Amino acid sequence: MENFSEWYHEILENAEIIDSRYPVKGMHAWLPYGFKIRKKIIETLRKLLDEDHDEVLFPLLIPEEELMKESIHIKGFEDEVYWVTHGGKAKLKRKLALRPTSETAMYPMFSLWIRTHKDLPLKVYQIVNTFRYETKHTRPLIRIREITTFKEAHTVHKTLEGAEKQVKKAINIYKTFFDSLGIPYLITKRPEWDKFPGAVYTIAFDTLMPDGRTLQIGTIHNLGQNFSKTFDITFETEEGKHEHAYQTCYGVSDRVIASVISIHGDEKGLCLPPKIAPIQIVIVPIIFKETEEEVLEFCKNVEKKLKEGKLKVHLDDRDIRAGRKFYEWEMKGIPLRIEIGPKDIEKNKVVVVRRDSGEKMDVKFDDNFVENIKSIIEKMNNDMRKRAWEKMKKKIYDVDDIKKCKDIINNGKGVVRVIWCGNENCGKNLEEKIKADMLGIEGKSSGKCLNCNEDGKYKVLLAKTY
Amino acid sequence: MENFSEWYHEILENAEIIDSRYPVKGMHAWLPYGFKIRKKIIETLRKLLDEDHDEVLFPLLIPEEELMKESIHIKGFEDEVYWVTHGGKAKLKRKLALRPTSETAMYPMFSLWIRTHKDLPLKVYQIVNTFRYETKHTRPLIRIREITTFKEAHTVHKTLEGAEKQVKKAINIYKTFFDSLGIPYLITKRPEWDKFPGAVYTIAFDTLMPDGRTLQIGTIHNLGQNFSKTFDITFETEEGKHEHAYQTCYGVSDRVIASVISIHGDEKGLCLPPKIAPIQIVIVPIIFKETEEEVLEFCKNVEKKLKEGKLKVHLDDRDIRAGRKFYEWEMKGIPLRIEIGPKDIEKNKVVVVRRDSGEKMDVKFDDNFVENIKSIIEKMNNDMRKRAWEKMKKKIYDVDDIKKCKDIINNGKGVVRVIWCGNENCGKNLEEKIKADMLGIEGKSSGKCLNCNEDGKYKVLLAKTY
Repeated sequence: MENFSEWYHEILENAEIIDSRYPVKGMHAWLPYGFKIRKKIIETLRKLLDEDHDEVLFPLLIPEEELMKESIHIKGFEDEVYWVTHGGKAKLKRKLALRPTSETAMYPMFSLWIRTHKDLPLKVYQIVNTFRYETKHTRPLIRIREITTFKEAHTVHKTLEGAEKQVKKAINIYKTFFDSLGIPYLITKRPEWDKFPGAVYTIAFDTLMPDGRTLQIGTIHNLGQNFSKTFDITFETEEGKHEHAYQTCYGVSDRVIASVISIHGDEKGLCLPPKIAPIQIVIVPIIFKETEEEVLEFCKNVEKKLKEGKLKVHLDDRDIRAGRKFYEWEMKGIPLRIEIGPKDIEKNKVVVVRRDSGEKMDVKFDDNFVENIKSIIEKMNNDMRKRAWEKMKKKIYDVDDIKKCKDIINNGKGVVRVIWCGNENCGKNLEEKIKADMLGIEGKSSGKCLNCNEDGKYKVLLAKTY
Repeated sequence: MENFSEWYHEILENAEIIDSRYPVKGMHAWLPYGFKIRKKIIETLRKLLDEDHDEVLFPLLIPEEELMKESIHIKGFEDEVYWVTHGGKAKLKRKLALRPTSETAMYPMFSLWIRTHKDLPLKVYQIVNTFRYETKHTRPLIRIREITTFKEAHTVHKTLEGAEKQVKKAINIYKTFFDSLGIPYLITKRPEWDKFPGAVYTIAFDTLMPDGRTLQIGTIHNLGQNFSKTFDITFETEEGKHEHAYQTCYGVSDRVIASVISIHGDEKGLCLPPKIAPIQIVIVPIIFKETEEEVLEFCKNVEKKLKEGKLKVHLDDRDIRAGRKFYEWEMKGIPLRIEIGPKDIEKNKVVVVRRDSGEKMDVKFDDNFVENIKSIIEKMNNDMRKRAWEKMKKKIYDVDDIKKCKDIINNGKGVVRVIWCGNENCGKNLEEKIKADMLGIEGKSSGKCLNCNEDGKYKVLLAKTY
């Protein structure tokens, strides 16, 4: 795709994901097909979280005094909060914020819920809409004013180690989640100047979009005791002492959906990983007048078998040309197309076409049919993930020269990996010189800092970000 | 229950449904157990709607000029709309309303979506939070400022008959829905002065709460062309003419959950219909030291069998007294309790206790075990529904005397059915004299109007309402 931005807007419209014409900037309506994809992605996430978290639901509106309690936190959000000031014709006595995120809605309640060490750990999550009054250029599902899908998990622990362990668990949950969507990721520790307002540190998942810019798709924050001290979340220890608890929180948003669309999509449209496709297989009968009945009956048998195998299948028996059907279903990203014509029936087989690779295969309609289709789907899931990872890896460049960094970043080639001494000024200088954002620290290193040429400490990634 | 209001608040807290201590009046946090019940109820509803509707999701915020377009509609809501006026520190150029309902968010988009008769009928729904700045006394899940669960369906048709048919379909959907929850209902056509603002007419489902007041649990509106004319929703007919479409909308809210809690609950706590219980069966081992291992093993076998039968079962093997477990699970409304002690094992049977009736039964742990448990559950579902219906029917009184009406209404005995001539003044006089609200018209009648003694036209219901 030559022009990613144009492609992206067109696919959202043509594949009927969302409607951007809603009369408020940065807010969109989910169309039925888009909603189904969103639902599958949410289900995948819920399943992972439900193993170890309880789902809850907190109010949207946060009283001003609660939002304002944590001074560093509010500084990070005060320019982007929407305020409700009136109810009916009356001015409210106190302003209410539309949640930009829910720490300040939840933690006053956590303070009531948690009494003793027996109440810990507490692990909850919710999936809600949140709001940011974005002043930057908005972009559907990427930079929006109503984030329609915000999964935020919040946990409370007795010890710092408990919180540390939870951070690691959350990293694993997100790895499993993104792997199942075939989305490659870069995991870094955000620099101090870009961590979540109020956190001790932030671990971030970024992916690489087709235009060479990175997209933050998940973050995990160790909050230490920062919020528990502000919101008075204390517990009685086994020894009868009262201590402030340790907290973490971690979130993913609509951006996950944006990344699935962008990373797997191609010139023909969407390409959905089979695990989250609302329809996994579309059957298109190849109709000639003389054999129409026979072909349709065969198609129905194939459909029945696949349904019995718990696959999501759709028989497209509309009275329009097969070519148009191919075009439409390719646009919508259906993983497998099964074509069935009279010649296939003669040989008791079907033609299977993979959406991702275009590969065509004959598959016998015998006792192993469903199992064979399932293997193709499984292989397709793996291939899509592998291909996306390889594509991304090729665009991560180890560089020890500012000019080369600039060339890579400016020309949308991808991400640079450089060595940094760890000094904040040097970090910001690097960002300034390269005209990129530091994603964060990938790991330790012993070379020379690209800015000051002193001993380096860290391997860091820099990129143009969304 | 002597004091329903007190009972209701206590059960919400003790059964861990919601937390009312959130620091904004009329807004509550869903606790994990309450959230699970809510989720099951939503799933039940989704399943019914997905057969014939597409799920969508529209933005929360509605621009002032869209909300204001339909003059009758806005009059019904203008005193209760929350307004967002500021983004960050800046005043917004135009105010944005928190949706009180979504006609004015959706219909401008419908106007873009619908071009020809081929685009019709359009049937969509969404499940979202909506907001009402209630000035009356708030009550959790019943009269709240953030309605956390609002299912609103919106349909568009070519003809008035199409819309009429949809109203009947919606009535059937709601009947099936409330039947599956065991909630009895009164179906009436709301009087003109109480119909949905902007509708041609409103059909309502009310149920009767234990204190004799009715609760509106569902409404269905035939909108005719009122909104399609305001929002310019037109389509090209088969003959090439341009016509305004016909519309309906219908909704249910958190109140459904309030009714399930109130109608089936008793002095011991919640009593959940098995169809929506997050846990359908709890197994409580009766432990004596000598036989502990044996009993626990037997319990695990029972648990395994029930799980294989796709029943939602929980084995409570906590090290606390069985009596305390009984108390807790009764409070949480788990439909069946299975008690297993050493004497039961000797006889290869278990003791099953029904939450609704307290009935105790011996059930053999043989090949028919799971089937037998399923029959008990099925019977319990039916019994609960039947019992609730009978209870309600006894509290509907045919009355032809104002004084008797007043006695029934004032003393919380239930609902009165009277004859009405159809004249609005008479209707409002009746409301005034009886000190009750007219729920609406149940059907035709030929007696004398209770107010003016002229020829009656309608059987109508009046009640004290929530």
